[in-house]
Order: sequence, then structure tokens, then C-alpha cells
Amino acid sequence: MSQPDCVFCKIVSGHIPSAKVYEDENVLAFLDIGPIAKGHLLVIPKQHFATVDSCDSKVLADVAMVLPRIAKAVKEAMNVKDYNILCNNGKLAGQVVEHLHFHIIPRTLGDAIRWNWPVSKYPMNEIENLAKKIGEKVVVSSP
Amino acid sequence: MSQPDCVFCKIVSGHIPSAKVYEDENVLAFLDIGPIAKGHLLVIPKQHFATVDSCDSKVLADVAMVLPRIAKAVKEAMNVKDYNILCNNGKLAGQVVEHLHFHIIPRTLGDAIRWNWPVSKYPMNEIENLAKKIGEKVVVSSP
Repeated sequence: MSQPDCVFCKIVSGHIPSAKVYEDENVLAFLDIGPIAKGHLLVIPKQHFATVDSCDSKVLADVAMVLPRIAKAVKEAMNVKDYNILCNNGKLAGQVVEHLHFHIIPRTLGDAIRWNWPVSKYPMNEIENLAKKIGEKVVVSSP
Repeated sequence: MSQPDCVFCKIVSGHIPSAKVYEDENVLAFLDIGPIAKGHLLVIPKQHFATVDSCDSKVLADVAMVLPRIAKAVKEAMNVKDYNILCNNGKLAGQVVEHLHFHIIPRTLGDAIRWNWPVSKYPMNEIENLAKKIGEKVVVSSP
């Protein structure tokens, strides 16, 4: 359930301190110690899973059940209207700690956060073929 | 439940076509027509909510229940290991369509996607005070 070398598992067990915002039986939310915006926090399942695709569905649903309340609290406490929820899965996606976590990042006008959005377009018919290809995998992956 | 002017509600009802990847009673996943990576898709609750904080918890849990399977299917079909899950809430966060949606963005070595990560640090004691301030709002916001 818990990984001996995982920093977030140690935060869950209390061996590493954290600035907790919310805690229940299955979920923990705490402030990121290297925030990219004031109030930037992390929401994690207490149980160790590296990524969304490897996470137990019910565990992820437990996180989702409290995410609206936590996001609302961030908005109210930080007095912001806008925020990103970001979950990086794997190194190329920017994941540093290999324990599934959702960043909640408050956004304000003129803040320093930027990401590019290099939109492309599918050639004719490719989108339907691609949807079919991925869709077939969803069925195959089902329990 | 459905908003007359919402593009994603029209996709749910079938009035606007989409390249569907997955569909059940509550959740729809379809390819983004302006992908920033091949296989970039959107996962939405069929019911209309603008943002995570305004979303019914159970509806978000329905999305979470299928998200691992969909993410796994994207990995397998696109032959990638890494991906971002991103949910922009509000205009300053980059939300364009005001119907809650999670982007799943496959990532590959050398791709064109970049975001900065302007890490800062809290002055002494501020993190604890901030955690308390947000934490109190979670309690207040609870049903």
C-alpha cells in the first residue's frame, strides 16, 4: 500500500511534515512547498499509486468526491476565480514525485504561469480512425 | 441539466458530431479537434457543470471511475508512457468551453509542449497560516 522510498507516503504517515489543508480516510491535501502560485496545493490518494492509469478506480473516485470542496475552498481562501488542476503522469509529462497527485494552481491576471498550446489539425479521416483505435483499447482494458 | 448554448452539451446530445472514444451513461470521451498532441482527448461529464468547484461530487466521481481505463487506453493506442491530465477552470486558467473537461495529453520526447514552472518559496510560517486559512474554508464549504 505504501512505498518505503516515497516522499508523499512519508507525508501521509506523518514521517515528513506537511502543511495540511484537508484530510480524510483516503485523501490528503497539502500545500506545495515549491508553489508556482500562492495557495498552490496537492491533492493525493493516501494509498500509493504512481499514475492515473495505474490507480484503482474507486481510489480515484474518492479523490474526485472531495475535489470540488477543496477547489472551492482554494477559490474562497485565496480570493481567486480561476485555477488549473493538473496531474502529470510520467517523467516526460513533468512528474517528479511518483505518487499520483493533482496540483490545484490558483490563477490571477498577469501571473507568471504560461504554457504554450501548439494546436494542430488532423488530416481528413484520421480523427475517426484514431478515435476507433483508442476506443477499442478502452474496451480491451475494461475489467 | 444541459445548456442550450454549450458546444459540449451539443456533442453529448449528438447535435454536433465528435470522434468518440468512450461513452457511458454519465461520461463521454472524444478527441480534441484542435489537438496539441496526437491522441489528445477530452473527458467530460454528460451533465453540464462549468468547473470542478461547481460540479456535483458524485458526477466527478463518475468521471474518475473511468479515467484510469481511458488513460490506459490512450497510452496503449498511442504507444506512449507519459501524459498530462489538465482541467482549466475559468478564463484566466485557459478554459475556453465552459463545460467541465479534462484534457488527456500524450507526451513524447522532444514534443512542442512547454510550460514554465515559476517556483517560489513561502516566507517563514506563511505556509502553515495559509494551510489553516484554506483548511477552514474546506470545513465551511462541506455539505
